[in-house]
Amino acid sequence: METTTLGAAGAPATTTAAPDGVRDGSRDARAPGWSVGVDVGGTKVLAVLLDPEGRVVRSHRAPTVPGPDGLLDAVTTATRSLTVAHGLPLERLAGVGIGVPGVVDPVTGTVEHAVNVGVASPFALAAAASAVLGARTPVRVENDLNAAVLGAAHAVPDPDHPGDARDLAFLALGTGVAAGLLLGGSLRRGTHRAAGEIGHLTLVPGGLSCTCGQRGCAEQYASGSAIDAAWPSPDGRPAPAVLFEAAAAGDPDAVRVRDRYAWAVGACVRVLVLTCDVDRVVVGGGVSGVGEPLLAAVRAALDAEAAASPFLASLRLADRVRLAPAGVPVGAVGAALVGRGEVV
Amino acid sequence: METTTLGAAGAPATTTAAPDGVRDGSRDARAPGWSVGVDVGGTKVLAVLLDPEGRVVRSHRAPTVPGPDGLLDAVTTATRSLTVAHGLPLERLAGVGIGVPGVVDPVTGTVEHAVNVGVASPFALAAAASAVLGARTPVRVENDLNAAVLGAAHAVPDPDHPGDARDLAFLALGTGVAAGLLLGGSLRRGTHRAAGEIGHLTLVPGGLSCTCGQRGCAEQYASGSAIDAAWPSPDGRPAPAVLFEAAAAGDPDAVRVRDRYAWAVGACVRVLVLTCDVDRVVVGGGVSGVGEPLLAAVRAALDAEAAASPFLASLRLADRVRLAPAGVPVGAVGAALVGRGEVV
Repeated sequence: METTTLGAAGAPATTTAAPDGVRDGSRDARAPGWSVGVDVGGTKVLAVLLDPEGRVVRSHRAPTVPGPDGLLDAVTTATRSLTVAHGLPLERLAGVGIGVPGVVDPVTGTVEHAVNVGVASPFALAAAASAVLGARTPVRVENDLNAAVLGAAHAVPDPDHPGDARDLAFLALGTGVAAGLLLGGSLRRGTHRAAGEIGHLTLVPGGLSCTCGQRGCAEQYASGSAIDAAWPSPDGRPAPAVLFEAAAAGDPDAVRVRDRYAWAVGACVRVLVLTCDVDRVVVGGGVSGVGEPLLAAVRAALDAEAAASPFLASLRLADRVRLAPAGVPVGAVGAALVGRGEVV
Repeated sequence: METTTLGAAGAPATTTAAPDGVRDGSRDARAPGWSVGVDVGGTKVLAVLLDPEGRVVRSHRAPTVPGPDGLLDAVTTATRSLTVAHGLPLERLAGVGIGVPGVVDPVTGTVEHAVNVGVASPFALAAAASAVLGARTPVRVENDLNAAVLGAAHAVPDPDHPGDARDLAFLALGTGVAAGLLLGGSLRRGTHRAAGEIGHLTLVPGGLSCTCGQRGCAEQYASGSAIDAAWPSPDGRPAPAVLFEAAAAGDPDAVRVRDRYAWAVGACVRVLVLTCDVDRVVVGGGVSGVGEPLLAAVRAALDAEAAASPFLASLRLADRVRLAPAGVPVGAVGAALVGRGEVV
């Protein structure tokens, strides 16, 4: 079951039913809590339809078209495509949530400084989307990492903390490095919406130049871009996968690059735990596609530092690290949780 | 007006009325909200009597006597001394709060790992003090930095955030380096009560050995102990004061040591803001006794880094830094706020 629509610029967009959880929309359509979540990234837009039980029942993918119009069209097209495909009238949606990589005012639904998606000046995205979709469809906007940490908490439930005692960081390792923080069940956005910008903390004084103007930023060592630079992919496959495979095969240069990378990610984990003492750090972003070998390397790096320090050992850092679950679009799921009004 | 009592080990303890705010205890004794706060440090115990309006009306100081018995005696002696001197019956106290440098369970009032005050194993301090003072006197215990950040928020009100929207870090520069975090009006203790342990984040990879077992920890560069080591006092005066005076007088070595110190403190400020995006960072601890020259040096260090980075500049880090107010015992005041049940 798949519908194909056209993206804003004519590029193909696809709407797909989830492998399981497919359901007859007419059955539960009156239940409260259906929502759409749209995760807007620099290259693609991924949207999901979440059922009232919080399960992904359908997803939609389209290339990003930069600029306010492209952003607005992506959101409204995804919402209509998902609901039409599921036979769910728009007015039955509890809401639409949008995660955007920029500075977001969740109260006004305004986005700015979203450079990667071509929105620099303030753009009232929520109001614009509501106007197109109809005023009875609430639209809420959140920073993408804040949405992702909500999605991660939803997707990686913690047996020790059932219910609402959710305490974690979502550490995104992609083009850049940044974190979303859910502290005691509440999003920590920060007083100037700059919480989690740990990618621009200095890891190596006097080290590599960063686009932010500083030197030695964590982002230069722990991002996917850092792997691209240190171990370029020879064949178009993702550089992190190529690097970790080469290291696993025993290439000593690859081992060195991998271990330095894992050290840098471990340093980011230490920043998050020694500052906020989050219960868990969920590693996501493109690099997390490496999977278990990444987790093993980061844990090994953390354990190596802890071996020299009873203090660090007492914090059990390696135990706190998790991988974002493969195949779960935590950003879009979190946006859908925002959309249905799980204000935290 | 001063009463002198004897500390637990026979050392002199003094109880002093505050220069202003002296009042006839019989007048307001029935008002709710009188409380005692006890700040237990490695060398001294400082206690205050807070009136219902949150003003310090009397203080008490005694040397620290290590161990559970010494801790208990310090708390009960201070409480009795302050209330007797003020003519306030114990049962009129809303409560007694105690700030202890260790791992504290605020629910059970148990203290452990308080190495500097000689309490290693779990000690049920709140229950023990209540038993001595009488069960009708509630006793609450909190980590000393958590108490201090409450005291700092109380003592340094923010005109931009009247009422309860209090968002700040208290950065203690003393024997070690650590922070207390008040995020959106709530204490952030951390899931393992390790929030704010930024003194053991690596500032200089491969740098100075730290007592924690790591190398290059922030504590080795930004603490008062770091100044003691780099610029020993020749005459028993506090090393930070001697260093900053020598730097102000133009001694090039002193300027270099001061600027490196300020850089390290600035790095701690960056960690706090880029991770938690706190609105303010209040610098306290022994080194803050230097006063304005310390603030100026830290702000200059932050501005120097921001000059190279529009991103850092946009965070306005230097503007966020404040000095803990001279003459206000923020630790004891915060403990008194804990004591009167300002649970956050």
